[in-house]
Amino acid sequence: MNALRYPGLTSLVVVAMFAWPALAQQAASSTNVKTNFTAVESAHNAANAQPGPRTVPGRSIPVPDTVSPQLQSAIAAPYRVPAWNANPRSVSEWKELVNKLADAGAPGRAALREKLGVSIQPAVLGGVKAFILQPKELPAANSNRLLVHVHGGGYVYNPGEAGTQEATLMAAYGGFKVISFDYRMPPDYPYPAAMDDAIAVWKAAQQMQKPENMAIFGTSTGGGMTLAMILRAKQEGLQLPAAIAPGTPWSDLTETGDTYKTNEWLDNILVSYDGYLTRAAQLYANGHDLKDPQLSPIYGDFHGFPPTILTSGTRDLFLSNTVRTRRKLRQAGVEAVLEVFEGVSHAQYLVPEAPETKEAFTEITRFFDTHLGR
Amino acid sequence: MNALRYPGLTSLVVVAMFAWPALAQQAASSTNVKTNFTAVESAHNAANAQPGPRTVPGRSIPVPDTVSPQLQSAIAAPYRVPAWNANPRSVSEWKELVNKLADAGAPGRAALREKLGVSIQPAVLGGVKAFILQPKELPAANSNRLLVHVHGGGYVYNPGEAGTQEATLMAAYGGFKVISFDYRMPPDYPYPAAMDDAIAVWKAAQQMQKPENMAIFGTSTGGGMTLAMILRAKQEGLQLPAAIAPGTPWSDLTETGDTYKTNEWLDNILVSYDGYLTRAAQLYANGHDLKDPQLSPIYGDFHGFPPTILTSGTRDLFLSNTVRTRRKLRQAGVEAVLEVFEGVSHAQYLVPEAPETKEAFTEITRFFDTHLGR
Repeated sequence: MNALRYPGLTSLVVVAMFAWPALAQQAASSTNVKTNFTAVESAHNAANAQPGPRTVPGRSIPVPDTVSPQLQSAIAAPYRVPAWNANPRSVSEWKELVNKLADAGAPGRAALREKLGVSIQPAVLGGVKAFILQPKELPAANSNRLLVHVHGGGYVYNPGEAGTQEATLMAAYGGFKVISFDYRMPPDYPYPAAMDDAIAVWKAAQQMQKPENMAIFGTSTGGGMTLAMILRAKQEGLQLPAAIAPGTPWSDLTETGDTYKTNEWLDNILVSYDGYLTRAAQLYANGHDLKDPQLSPIYGDFHGFPPTILTSGTRDLFLSNTVRTRRKLRQAGVEAVLEVFEGVSHAQYLVPEAPETKEAFTEITRFFDTHLGR
Repeated sequence: MNALRYPGLTSLVVVAMFAWPALAQQAASSTNVKTNFTAVESAHNAANAQPGPRTVPGRSIPVPDTVSPQLQSAIAAPYRVPAWNANPRSVSEWKELVNKLADAGAPGRAALREKLGVSIQPAVLGGVKAFILQPKELPAANSNRLLVHVHGGGYVYNPGEAGTQEATLMAAYGGFKVISFDYRMPPDYPYPAAMDDAIAVWKAAQQMQKPENMAIFGTSTGGGMTLAMILRAKQEGLQLPAAIAPGTPWSDLTETGDTYKTNEWLDNILVSYDGYLTRAAQLYANGHDLKDPQLSPIYGDFHGFPPTILTSGTRDLFLSNTVRTRRKLRQAGVEAVLEVFEGVSHAQYLVPEAPETKEAFTEITRFFDTHLGR
């Protein structure tokens, strides 16, 4: 079936690449649109006349006008080459790319902390390097509360301070003290190093604050690890946090789930599973079964999980990861709130300048405020 | 911009229609897939290298294996021709089509009532024809509760008993007594007839039961009308129900919202706004502004709305209608729960045989049980 995913595409793409610029110079006319639509309608009624896979036409999809101008800019942005389709051939090539991307974002992260009034301090918890981020004035209601942040980046990106941007947003919009930890990553340290670090940090955090006053949160790989941390904490008989917020979690490292296909090429952050994701999954797993619940927590047992809030977007390649995770939580009797933002691709609710970002973190803050002790 | 939505498509479609059957007979090989992917990757990196609309390739999208076999069958089903793209040229052609579709479903609806043990009785409320549906044994906890159901069908489909299927599911899975009313529809009765009937039914229902023991629910057009009923009840100073469940509501009759485009051709129920929907909207509005909040409730004021649960799916053309409505409810301080089902097209959580349907109605039941008095 896979060989037929792009039927006739080699020739179609060649036609398309040359046909589009020419067409773009034609004056737009509604006659053209209607002729266009009628042709597509007739071809796709025919192509979808039997039970089976869905055949959809290639097309140009406008930037939605139903979101803020700041989010419109993010949605309109080009694919992130080479981040999305990186294919380093050696350990040194991986490191070079990872460091280059991390360095490129450093000035922006510093400016964001300055703008939002968030401080950052290096720390070590349970032998793991970490950062403590907090607003200049911690609200009294949150003085006995502590959040643990797990950064994203496909288990390869965002080492060191590069992993802290989401923690800055949470500290600022929620008024929380946040520990963001710098787990070990491949190629030097494949699975289970990241999870060993995560659980060491969770144990150490419990020396700082009561678990019922704490939450764990993170996006993408950070969301998947948040879920895996709860599975492992259950196994080890550790206390659990009062709530968790896995954002668009990479809960399934295999390409399983409808939006891996339906939102492919539409999501301008991840673009396709066949980009760096597939290589990062292999690099991290290092021969382990990708469906082991410590790697793909969707295959774990969610009974007894803390109340959970999940965030995704309508264009997110991981929308299925998000809604499958939520449904499984609900089936296990867990309170699980779902946030889906209009037009948002993978993790795009983290765009610092968009008002939707503040809304997303305000929803998470309300949820934590309901469930965390004081 | 619209003229460029299907760039070069007239020629591409012709190529595709002839190229696909030939390709389908080639043996699948992973070499083909990789060659295919590399070509698509390179073409689409180029096509998405500047800020602007998103260019996505035509492709074949498999039926997801992450849902029940029954739902897989529904997802695999062909487009519903002529339901989705109906274009009747006269009043009599509209009536002929509407009645044909209604009649075709009658045996299935009767069998469903029989299987689920739900009775149906005709009634008249506030001068409006209606049906009362209830399970053979009404649970004691629900004996003083009453639900009002607003059927879907784009303001043109599902007259009479044809509009009651969702009420059967709610009565059976929730154990509720349900009033399903048969509002007047175009072409004979355009706006505001349907809303006049709806508000007359709501007034009459309050003579049967206390509003705090009642909820209003419905899918698609029924979801849009549910929202419009609350807006109008607020305006008229009527009491509100304790909760509402607008499923994938047609909250915006204009083609506004990202998934009108992103899920076009993917949703096998509605397929495209440029099918019957655009004609039904005009027929219903009959010259009224489509953005009047009584027609497109997304443009209304949601402050003071009752707690709301909304249901949609990842392939739903109205996923944006759903999440935009929810976000606006949250901005107005209203409790609003979101359910998004994996792989589900428009209103496909109503497929009677799928376990996901029972899950969807069980979630709505829990929500009503939390909010309705006894």
